[in-house]
Amino acid sequence: MTITVAIDAMGGDHGPSVTVPAALAFLHDVPDARVIIVGADDVLRKAIAGAPPDVASRITVHAATEVVAMDDPPADALRKKKDSSMRVAINLVKDGTAHACVSAGNTGALMAIARFVLKTLPGIDRPAIASQLPTRKGVVTALDLGANVNCSAEQLVQFAAMGSALCSAVEGIERPTVGLLNIGEEDIKGNELVKETAELLKRSGLNFAGNVEGDDIFKGTTDVVVCDGFVGNVALKTTEGLAGMLADFLKREFTRNPLTKLSALVAYPVLQAFRKRVDPRRYNGATLVGLRGVVVKSHGGTDVFGFAQAIRKAHTEVLHDVLAGIAQRIAAMPAAAIAPGATAVAATPDA
Amino acid sequence: MTITVAIDAMGGDHGPSVTVPAALAFLHDVPDARVIIVGADDVLRKAIAGAPPDVASRITVHAATEVVAMDDPPADALRKKKDSSMRVAINLVKDGTAHACVSAGNTGALMAIARFVLKTLPGIDRPAIASQLPTRKGVVTALDLGANVNCSAEQLVQFAAMGSALCSAVEGIERPTVGLLNIGEEDIKGNELVKETAELLKRSGLNFAGNVEGDDIFKGTTDVVVCDGFVGNVALKTTEGLAGMLADFLKREFTRNPLTKLSALVAYPVLQAFRKRVDPRRYNGATLVGLRGVVVKSHGGTDVFGFAQAIRKAHTEVLHDVLAGIAQRIAAMPAAAIAPGATAVAATPDA
Repeated sequence: MTITVAIDAMGGDHGPSVTVPAALAFLHDVPDARVIIVGADDVLRKAIAGAPPDVASRITVHAATEVVAMDDPPADALRKKKDSSMRVAINLVKDGTAHACVSAGNTGALMAIARFVLKTLPGIDRPAIASQLPTRKGVVTALDLGANVNCSAEQLVQFAAMGSALCSAVEGIERPTVGLLNIGEEDIKGNELVKETAELLKRSGLNFAGNVEGDDIFKGTTDVVVCDGFVGNVALKTTEGLAGMLADFLKREFTRNPLTKLSALVAYPVLQAFRKRVDPRRYNGATLVGLRGVVVKSHGGTDVFGFAQAIRKAHTEVLHDVLAGIAQRIAAMPAAAIAPGATAVAATPDA
Repeated sequence: MTITVAIDAMGGDHGPSVTVPAALAFLHDVPDARVIIVGADDVLRKAIAGAPPDVASRITVHAATEVVAMDDPPADALRKKKDSSMRVAINLVKDGTAHACVSAGNTGALMAIARFVLKTLPGIDRPAIASQLPTRKGVVTALDLGANVNCSAEQLVQFAAMGSALCSAVEGIERPTVGLLNIGEEDIKGNELVKETAELLKRSGLNFAGNVEGDDIFKGTTDVVVCDGFVGNVALKTTEGLAGMLADFLKREFTRNPLTKLSALVAYPVLQAFRKRVDPRRYNGATLVGLRGVVVKSHGGTDVFGFAQAIRKAHTEVLHDVLAGIAQRIAAMPAAAIAPGATAVAATPDA
């Protein structure tokens, strides 16, 4: 099967200067894939003009006249920019022209448009944002990282099913272990939502490993970690803040004086190896999971290497049929584990 | 004024082998302070036998026959161990013999006993756990880090007042800026609780700087960051997990082969300076804030240096009268900002 990925070529901080070279690099690496780049026709045609024939033959330009800005309110992007590169790329998934869509644009707009155009999978109330993060043991799939502020227990169970399917598709783990993010060391054992979710997860047919705490995420205690979007977003951004601070401190110490600069020179290969290991570009690409289509959100400020990773992730998810994986897991669940979840509060505007 | 600190000498992973040398080190550094070490009489008398006279004259042993175990349920510790070193140390604060109490024991038990014995300050519904963390700019005071799973908006405002007072007392900042932890980059702008709290904080008389996101914590965007105990605990433990992983990866790269080991040797002074900068022992000591007394919880596994830091923190809080600081801020608030907060769910058992 030839997999076609639609790319919102205008999205992100750098637009086509990053997205097009990334698409070409991806096509070079994956010889049987196809890409449709969506956006300003003339700009994109120019951008691919010099591509080698074996790559050029597998890339198509699809014109779209509008661009969703990084600060467009999602509702406006949805209602007023019907010909945006983001919207058109998602339409290509909807009509079956493409198997997946990748965008580095405005997350809220992408979620709102993708939800409106593609709809959610059967048994899924709301999509979630899922990402892979490095751990001591390998990789963890974490969700929801910010799409849903308030969740019902049933929705958290749906997230667990989606995260398991995603982990199987991307990491090749057949029955991933699922941890429910909680707080535990103190005498408090979590709020009502977490307690209720744990009971449902035990009966879900998923490989539920029980509660995990914040430090378990990077220990790699479980393959999947599930939480609501408020907690997940705070945890993700807090770790980004800490990583940035530590990198800054390390740099300051190594550049303090000529002697420390000399040791930085000596330690350079080691520091590079360390840097490569935790390079966030390697993990770039968050999946908007739960939709009737594969949609991957790239970090807005990433470079060619990072954006190519996001395209690769979308391709892998299609190749290993993540949508069927979610459907199977939802179908295998007792109805009570996922059914009465109609109490959640909407996070993205319904159009 | 001579400040007296009561120490639960039996608490923590290492008991008197850490707590007593830390108390002696503290007394050596702070010549006008006094310490009461509480626990097994004979053990503690032996432990201070060799102390130099100027220190020995300011340390007293107070006998307590029981010890709260790290895994004792808080309710049991409270009801069944009336003569525990933890309980007796808190009693000494209650009856005015000591100004503050420090324990490295079971957090849940410490919170339950301290709340039962000392009660909360006027206008404070529930105590919170607050800690200082390093940031790019200096230090942030963050709370609640795990005492209260579900909070009302009024309680979060109380936390803001307590955090401000604590920051003033410990960091010497007169009107600390207060950030409310939220998620923002996506189109969702937080849950109902956060929105309601923001409105109250605007009218609280505190130096409210608006919403902050997870990455603002370590950027040092505000002096104080307020959140509920579930979110705070997850964020704190997640950062501990990440820091541990990064340290582990760095170590692995530097010990990979003889050549990398050699560069580790060259880079050793720089790595030590970095390590010192982010040494968690320097920030050891979480305050159980909101009680009618100063109670500081040390990390259970810390060493002499770390435990001495926790004693120093308790001493500083008394010296700069954190309790009066909280009372002043609460008194200055319009009643509506803190009054109707009776909806919170208890996290520690009421005895």
